[in-house]
Amino acid sequence: MAERHEVPETGAAAPVVPSLRWADPPEGPAVVLLDQTRLPAEETELVCADVPQLVAAIRALAVRGAPLLGIAGAYGVALAAARGDDVAAAAEALAHARPTAVNLGYGVRRASDAHRAASDAGAGPEAAASAALAEARAVHAEDADASARMARHGLALLGELRPEGGHRILTHCNTGALVSGGEGTALAVALAAHRAGALRRLWVDETRPLLQGARLTAYEAARAGMPYTVLADGAAGSLFAAGEVDAVLIGADRIAADGSVANKVGSYPLAVLARHHRVPFVVVAPLSTVDPATAGGADIVVEQRPGREVTEFPGALPVAPAGAPAYNPAFDVTPAELVTAIVTEAGVASPVTRDGLAKLCSTSRWSTSRSGNGMMAE
Amino acid sequence: MAERHEVPETGAAAPVVPSLRWADPPEGPAVVLLDQTRLPAEETELVCADVPQLVAAIRALAVRGAPLLGIAGAYGVALAAARGDDVAAAAEALAHARPTAVNLGYGVRRASDAHRAASDAGAGPEAAASAALAEARAVHAEDADASARMARHGLALLGELRPEGGHRILTHCNTGALVSGGEGTALAVALAAHRAGALRRLWVDETRPLLQGARLTAYEAARAGMPYTVLADGAAGSLFAAGEVDAVLIGADRIAADGSVANKVGSYPLAVLARHHRVPFVVVAPLSTVDPATAGGADIVVEQRPGREVTEFPGALPVAPAGAPAYNPAFDVTPAELVTAIVTEAGVASPVTRDGLAKLCSTSRWSTSRSGNGMMAE
Repeated sequence: MAERHEVPETGAAAPVVPSLRWADPPEGPAVVLLDQTRLPAEETELVCADVPQLVAAIRALAVRGAPLLGIAGAYGVALAAARGDDVAAAAEALAHARPTAVNLGYGVRRASDAHRAASDAGAGPEAAASAALAEARAVHAEDADASARMARHGLALLGELRPEGGHRILTHCNTGALVSGGEGTALAVALAAHRAGALRRLWVDETRPLLQGARLTAYEAARAGMPYTVLADGAAGSLFAAGEVDAVLIGADRIAADGSVANKVGSYPLAVLARHHRVPFVVVAPLSTVDPATAGGADIVVEQRPGREVTEFPGALPVAPAGAPAYNPAFDVTPAELVTAIVTEAGVASPVTRDGLAKLCSTSRWSTSRSGNGMMAE
Repeated sequence: MAERHEVPETGAAAPVVPSLRWADPPEGPAVVLLDQTRLPAEETELVCADVPQLVAAIRALAVRGAPLLGIAGAYGVALAAARGDDVAAAAEALAHARPTAVNLGYGVRRASDAHRAASDAGAGPEAAASAALAEARAVHAEDADASARMARHGLALLGELRPEGGHRILTHCNTGALVSGGEGTALAVALAAHRAGALRRLWVDETRPLLQGARLTAYEAARAGMPYTVLADGAAGSLFAAGEVDAVLIGADRIAADGSVANKVGSYPLAVLARHHRVPFVVVAPLSTVDPATAGGADIVVEQRPGREVTEFPGALPVAPAGAPAYNPAFDVTPAELVTAIVTEAGVASPVTRDGLAKLCSTSRWSTSRSGNGMMAE
């Protein structure tokens, strides 16, 4: 069982507690997580002193969000190495803690490869562990940098789509600092728009069953002073019908080679509504989310989670009859043809095509070039 | 404050406690409601001994669902008359307890008109009160009859749309015996399919924010032994994408003259998804739901409910930061062109047109004729 300690009250305007940090001895070695299952009511840190504790925290969604899972996976490998545990076994356990987010495997692989390369080059266990930790720190820093670049590209895209500004942006799930080494993906773009005085309203889908929108995005938006409004997921249709949504911005957990996007369940209905109402549907995700080994949407494995997440409310209040069966996929898949643009740290793919995505993936991390044939008009 | 008493445990297979009953003296005069806010955890009856108590119960959704609101409104007028209260004032208060369901005003008007007619014909207060009560009982009985007719017409429609049977039906909110003098509207059709051995699966949208699907429809489905599965509203998209939905069946709170349908928020996104996936979207509602005085969807007043229904969970658990603003429309409006058919007690309108609806409304209550030009092929 991971250790837990409360974070002192810091007030609404204070900077957000880091969603993940590495602790050296004597506090560690440990991966210390802000327990996202307890937000917004409590800010509690969860100290994971070994990999089984970290895997349990990943499964319980104490740490979540595709980019942050990659960072957690990399530090998890570093943790196993620092403890002298079997690094290959730890990497295996971490990589399979959740099936859909490709970033998890990416982070695990980066740290594992660094560890193996150091060992193969004759480094002792301590030096190899240092190499793994250095690589985890690099994954972490790169993600923060990618986040800043996505925010810039995304803001530029919004400006092209809607030069008049005053954007009313609908988002789903949580894609901010809580899921990232930086300020996140889709929410980082909304935050950039807010700072530029171009955000009129952030519509926050509550995101059932686990309410990451109401609990986490609203928490981040409130702290950042953004004009936001929470809504039940089913109420998004009314906003579209009333012409109150200028763009949908979401993150992604895995993007297939053809541009199909797996993201939090409830994203696909928004894509269909956006198409019906001719509103841009924009995905913001680092290139580490793109999985060239997954050909198309049908090849994405969608995690099925326990039905009680639907039939019982957090705090274990039953909201359905005892034993009610529930269908609870964690993600859904939006086909590329419904996605207006994919914003990455290397630029924007729009229209979303297999070739455009491949080109983006092949550009350097630091490139700011744009792929594709320009923006869609709608 | 209305009086409350618990109903003895009757077991899952027992018949459902009546959602509404009239109590004569000495228990009454009173309108006794099954408190739907407490289901499925508790079966509690709420004794409304005067109209203010009944209005409060309607506002709190202890009694809800368009047809049942009509019945409640009629009995409410009878209650005021039986108590010797100002019947006109009571009718006014009842008719405006909630703005969207047209049935409420319909029931109130039926009982008020009967009361006034009796008074005008020289009846004393007691005889006029008896006339109002008799009319309320007639509204109640007619609704039960309409429910049985809608179930028959709806089942026949399903058979035409999908002769192969084995229907997988998606429904939203609650439309069963709890909203009706009979077995309800959309859920009555699903129940008829179940009894005919033609229901493969009832997909139950949980229906945020108040969870009428998870709490009430699942409760009714479980008691009826129907094969059902609850899902978060946002997960419906995944079911459509997987080809797991053969038809959507919902109720209605108000149908405009042009066939636009106001129903529980979250219905419109289902209509858009159904159109995108070429799945029939069927509305089941008694003719009392059709409001010829409302020309089109834009003329329907949609009730905005308190934001805390979204930001706090039943039991007052906060799920969003303190003070988070929320958008909480109780209903949304689906335009007629997205509605495959409207099933009423007098027959089916399909395609849904102003003329087809008007024709249905002009047929006798007891007619079983069909309007429109036949079924849509999709």
